[in-house]
Amino acid sequence: MPIFDLPAVRACAADSPYAAVDVFIGTGGDGHCHPGATRPFGMVQLGPDTQHRHYRQSYPWAAGYRYEDDSILGFSHTHFSGTGHGDLGDVLLMPFTGPTKLEPGYPERPLSGYRSRFSHELERGEPGYYAVKLLDHEVEVELTCTERVGLHRYHYVKGDAAKLLLDLRSSVYNYPGKTLWSRLRVRNGRLVTGMRETRGWAPGRQLYFAIEFSQPIRAHEIHSTEEAVEYRGFRPPGQDPQGRRVLEGRALVAAFEFGAVPANQLMIKVAISAVSEAGAIANLAEMPGWDFEAERAAAASAWVEALGVLEIDAEPEMRQSLFTAHYHCLMAPSLFMDRDGRYRGPDNEVHRAEGFRFHSTFSLWDTYRALHPWLLLTQPAARNADFINSLLASQQASPHGILPVWQFHGIETWCMIGYHALPVIADAFLKGLRGFDAPAALKAMTASAEYQPYGGLEHYMKLGYIPHDREPEGVSKTLEYAFDDWTLARMAESLGETELAARYYQRAQYFRALLDPKTGFVRGKSSDGRWREPFNPAAAGYGSDYTEGSAWQYSWYMPHDCAALIENLGGDAGLIRRLDEIFEAEADPKQYSHMEDISGLIGHYAHGNEPSHHIAYLYSYGGAPWKTQRRLAQIVPSQYRVGPAGLAGNDDLGQMSAWLLFSAFGFYPVAPGSNEYVMGRPFVRRASLRLPNGRIFTVRAEGLSEANVYLGQVTLNGQRHGQSYLRHEDLMAGGELVFRMEAEPNLEWGQPRGVRPYSQTPYLALP
Amino acid sequence: MPIFDLPAVRACAADSPYAAVDVFIGTGGDGHCHPGATRPFGMVQLGPDTQHRHYRQSYPWAAGYRYEDDSILGFSHTHFSGTGHGDLGDVLLMPFTGPTKLEPGYPERPLSGYRSRFSHELERGEPGYYAVKLLDHEVEVELTCTERVGLHRYHYVKGDAAKLLLDLRSSVYNYPGKTLWSRLRVRNGRLVTGMRETRGWAPGRQLYFAIEFSQPIRAHEIHSTEEAVEYRGFRPPGQDPQGRRVLEGRALVAAFEFGAVPANQLMIKVAISAVSEAGAIANLAEMPGWDFEAERAAAASAWVEALGVLEIDAEPEMRQSLFTAHYHCLMAPSLFMDRDGRYRGPDNEVHRAEGFRFHSTFSLWDTYRALHPWLLLTQPAARNADFINSLLASQQASPHGILPVWQFHGIETWCMIGYHALPVIADAFLKGLRGFDAPAALKAMTASAEYQPYGGLEHYMKLGYIPHDREPEGVSKTLEYAFDDWTLARMAESLGETELAARYYQRAQYFRALLDPKTGFVRGKSSDGRWREPFNPAAAGYGSDYTEGSAWQYSWYMPHDCAALIENLGGDAGLIRRLDEIFEAEADPKQYSHMEDISGLIGHYAHGNEPSHHIAYLYSYGGAPWKTQRRLAQIVPSQYRVGPAGLAGNDDLGQMSAWLLFSAFGFYPVAPGSNEYVMGRPFVRRASLRLPNGRIFTVRAEGLSEANVYLGQVTLNGQRHGQSYLRHEDLMAGGELVFRMEAEPNLEWGQPRGVRPYSQTPYLALP
Repeated sequence: MPIFDLPAVRACAADSPYAAVDVFIGTGGDGHCHPGATRPFGMVQLGPDTQHRHYRQSYPWAAGYRYEDDSILGFSHTHFSGTGHGDLGDVLLMPFTGPTKLEPGYPERPLSGYRSRFSHELERGEPGYYAVKLLDHEVEVELTCTERVGLHRYHYVKGDAAKLLLDLRSSVYNYPGKTLWSRLRVRNGRLVTGMRETRGWAPGRQLYFAIEFSQPIRAHEIHSTEEAVEYRGFRPPGQDPQGRRVLEGRALVAAFEFGAVPANQLMIKVAISAVSEAGAIANLAEMPGWDFEAERAAAASAWVEALGVLEIDAEPEMRQSLFTAHYHCLMAPSLFMDRDGRYRGPDNEVHRAEGFRFHSTFSLWDTYRALHPWLLLTQPAARNADFINSLLASQQASPHGILPVWQFHGIETWCMIGYHALPVIADAFLKGLRGFDAPAALKAMTASAEYQPYGGLEHYMKLGYIPHDREPEGVSKTLEYAFDDWTLARMAESLGETELAARYYQRAQYFRALLDPKTGFVRGKSSDGRWREPFNPAAAGYGSDYTEGSAWQYSWYMPHDCAALIENLGGDAGLIRRLDEIFEAEADPKQYSHMEDISGLIGHYAHGNEPSHHIAYLYSYGGAPWKTQRRLAQIVPSQYRVGPAGLAGNDDLGQMSAWLLFSAFGFYPVAPGSNEYVMGRPFVRRASLRLPNGRIFTVRAEGLSEANVYLGQVTLNGQRHGQSYLRHEDLMAGGELVFRMEAEPNLEWGQPRGVRPYSQTPYLALP
Repeated sequence: MPIFDLPAVRACAADSPYAAVDVFIGTGGDGHCHPGATRPFGMVQLGPDTQHRHYRQSYPWAAGYRYEDDSILGFSHTHFSGTGHGDLGDVLLMPFTGPTKLEPGYPERPLSGYRSRFSHELERGEPGYYAVKLLDHEVEVELTCTERVGLHRYHYVKGDAAKLLLDLRSSVYNYPGKTLWSRLRVRNGRLVTGMRETRGWAPGRQLYFAIEFSQPIRAHEIHSTEEAVEYRGFRPPGQDPQGRRVLEGRALVAAFEFGAVPANQLMIKVAISAVSEAGAIANLAEMPGWDFEAERAAAASAWVEALGVLEIDAEPEMRQSLFTAHYHCLMAPSLFMDRDGRYRGPDNEVHRAEGFRFHSTFSLWDTYRALHPWLLLTQPAARNADFINSLLASQQASPHGILPVWQFHGIETWCMIGYHALPVIADAFLKGLRGFDAPAALKAMTASAEYQPYGGLEHYMKLGYIPHDREPEGVSKTLEYAFDDWTLARMAESLGETELAARYYQRAQYFRALLDPKTGFVRGKSSDGRWREPFNPAAAGYGSDYTEGSAWQYSWYMPHDCAALIENLGGDAGLIRRLDEIFEAEADPKQYSHMEDISGLIGHYAHGNEPSHHIAYLYSYGGAPWKTQRRLAQIVPSQYRVGPAGLAGNDDLGQMSAWLLFSAFGFYPVAPGSNEYVMGRPFVRRASLRLPNGRIFTVRAEGLSEANVYLGQVTLNGQRHGQSYLRHEDLMAGGELVFRMEAEPNLEWGQPRGVRPYSQTPYLALP
């Protein structure tokens, strides 16, 4: 029976966390999520690519797939979920019937190539499983995977010869010259291997693969479609595409024919490796059999376990958003090593992980804020230690001797700013994570924070800020470096490195040089100390002093020292006034339209991008937590919805999702490294977290309704909780946090100053 | 004191074999030899490149250097010596003074770039040592090396800042797009590493390097001069060329400044690796110190030992030619593995040699003829076993499962025809070489001979010849395959594989299908069995049925079955008549001018290319050895001279040279695998070989003079030697072969048929 004649398949009961995930949330609009099959933190993310060949479509197609598209190019094995820049889409396979078409053709001209139309009616996605009917080829496709191996099952129409296209030219964010080199090798009737090397987001990235078929190849052809080149080399054996077993070049495409296959089914395993073809072949052993249902069940089971740390009682749409958010939090950092522990590091050399599992895809500018704190609460310590050991191993292998900035597949991309591996490591350490060499980590962190050729650090260290006439985006860099420095200081202090701590506590104050008391903004300064003129607080992006943002969005970024912010704005009232201003400004969205990442606007507040993520929580620092509560009631429903367009901005490998999860639980880690979460207000009736230490922490909202926007009273384990923050140790002890929701604000709660969230001073010395 | 103020430096006594080598022989004219510093079979061949940037000069500049040039581009670490196609020239270094010029400039416009004029007056070369004065930079350069490490010593003029250029764009046979990717990394003030990947003769070849300086870098700059590309990636730290420590791209060039250096000397070690930068760094350990003189002496000493297996008493020019020829025989196959045994194989994956040393650069179409037989007589068994184990390991790693055809740096180039690893292996085995797995070798040989996609083997196996309408160069292929098959049969028989032997003895007869009794030539046939029309026996090259040759040159190639040749020509008289014809034809050299490799013409005989190499010896098969003797007197002095233009054709990694050595000793291996050498006549008064078994085999020519062209009598160990061939076992037993030279031919010697060299029939069964 055709798979789509069956009712929608769910691996678990309808009320299970697994069933609550909608893998299509964020696959349209600005989410840039990918709906393909993957394991938690899996190396393979196997799913459909719909992007057109033309590279100028890069931003919207950063994940390779857009829900709005109506045709599929094929199924590739690596994807980002939620990034603002594209790459990957490795090893594109496309089943087909009829004549062989080597080019994908055009979406607007059906049947013009191997691309096929599809309909969401005949498309299914679940964690670890994806299925679609290719309408033009009449092939039903099912996909599942282990960590390193993708498994395809194609259902051809009876009587059709099973055919398959492999396009090594295809890539997410493709453009002429991206593929530096590639190889393809038909090893025998069931095994094809190869590699390709690309200059994409990660330059000189090598990706090896091994493809195993459930049925023997009956015929194949391999082509190099490269345009005229000066020298092609002497001709290898098998001149004709039909006779070739091996080919290399810059534009390889192959077609395979399997004839009539038993039960009209062809299954294909694809293992990837960054090391070698031999490594990819060895990775195939991760999936020894050909039992698709068993593999699918195993993938589902991995997700059931990973999702099962959460229990959520909420409105159905919120519940779906939250489980999907948690699902999105478990995409990256992803495993990136062979079964024998070998991986390719930032020096593009092969290393072996000893005592840990190497992970890559660190979107650190995004994920240090809430994703890593969320993973510390929901993932085993060993997994979190793997992340940190991967960062440290990367620093060891880095040609620059520094921790990753934005790394994937082991390779540094230099995307975004900051050295945000520091807050990731420090936050984990301060929260008690062990399993890595903390003194060595501190050294690696210091090396990163003092590497002068990087992002204006030379000026930062000399002048105490980054001047606009020496380095672009100097305000954003100064602010973020200062925060990163503070996390280093915190960890150094905790390790007894008091001198180092003192030095970095001092650097953590460098942001003050750019606080402009006259405008209240954080503002660019030249190397001779003059404010940048003219000043437009809405100026954003290239040429401004701000990274994917404006002064409106960036002037809040000293989460470790909100006291300075408050002082600069003339006290609590000034802070609150300015916060109201950002949300209530009649900002013309067009002024940000040149910045693709600035989305999800409420006034100047841009929830779709990370610099805004902590802003709503800052009211509490000024003694007005009820305003945080009201803003969250405004933000959450407007920025998170179910459905493909449900995310207001790029999910950024889980950061947008982690924000929602924390916020729905009623608190948010404004300053990772502080061991505090700032209280917001819950969006769930009841939710609990099974913590990695085995304890359960539950949040309950009494009287939750659309009208009851505000917190009345809060109790922790039955005791009144008057602080507008929650300490990490209280959370980790397990217990119950009860919010009483009311329609009117409790203006007393979270007052006076002593119960507000931290600012710099209390942390100069650790408790 | 400037090095060139000293008298010409010789590491050894003036009458030593070492001093007899002139590394410049063959570096001009058609020889394509390279004069750089290398160890016997060394991985590094470090020396000057003079080639212009323009790739169309590829053929004459195949070695990178031409004696006719008057400017030097730089010094690179890999070269071929004697090939007809170009590549390599990796890691080009050029010391300079004055302003930094990133482009090499033009030879015809001095000072237009970093290229410098030089003069042969201020140039020296010895085995393992090269020196030159760069006139434009006033830098004296000395080079020496170990197997894997090149050592540079630069003498700057006092007061000049020592500067150095590293150009990763430079390459022998360069053209746009050849460099696929490259990396450069300044690891610290004394260590720079990197890699480059090229699509040259070997596609997708990766070459890693580590450069160590004797003095710390004071300043450096790294540039990427690539023209506009769609996407360059996010910018790594150190935007300006001066601040960069790491760069990757397709067109990298770097300059280093060392300031004033002690004694105005800068030394540089460069290690190469096919595996990784780490491998290159580890290879540096091969040369731990900085004692240039000691390294030079060690290199000289390795050559003294290698050259010392020969003792030669001959006219001075002949002696120089012969020691230089032996020197040229020890360039390749060259070592190609890291110190830990790792190497990159034909699948471009990394392997580890277990129990042998991996060698590459197998120019087998050339070298199976006389070079490998020569190496069997002059190199230790372990070295010859290394060659064979390298061939077998390559077959194991080959994506096609076949033995190398033309391999370098581990990568198959598919250059030329045949499967001539078979005669190399079979000849060695039949001559008693062990140290490899002979049954496995036989399997590898069979796999190669039966791999149908290769070079028309499908047709050969089906039709018994290769038809011109199915495959180019079918006559040459049929002939050479048949010979290769015969060597397989011989080895199979020796191993008791009688069925396999019988099958291959049959295939060894396939050449007969193309013997045209009417014309006496070997001639193209179509797949329906008709002779190709029109037939022009001088038609050569592409479009003809002959590989780098014509019917005139190729019709002699059934060295394992000259009986068939004689029969086709109507008996001994017919053979001799046709042989005279080829040498005495008034061949218009222009008819071969489109074929660069066909050089050294005597009539249609082209000594500059391999298909002619055995022809002069064929008179002996027809009972006229005196004519062989006379022809050799014609060939040797006309084809081999001292001086840069001394070789009539490409040395082909020692094949041209090995021909001379054998011929000067008075015998030649017409049919490797037969264990016989066909007698010619000596060109030395006395010469001896220290054989690998420790015995000495001496040749003495009594009455040698220009007039005494002919053999009178021959004795072996005092016994009259009436056969016109020498058996390998008699040679290996050691002893003395005495030729009595006379002005008149001895028409009786080498008669009757029973004492002539073998033809097929006697070898159907081995003794």
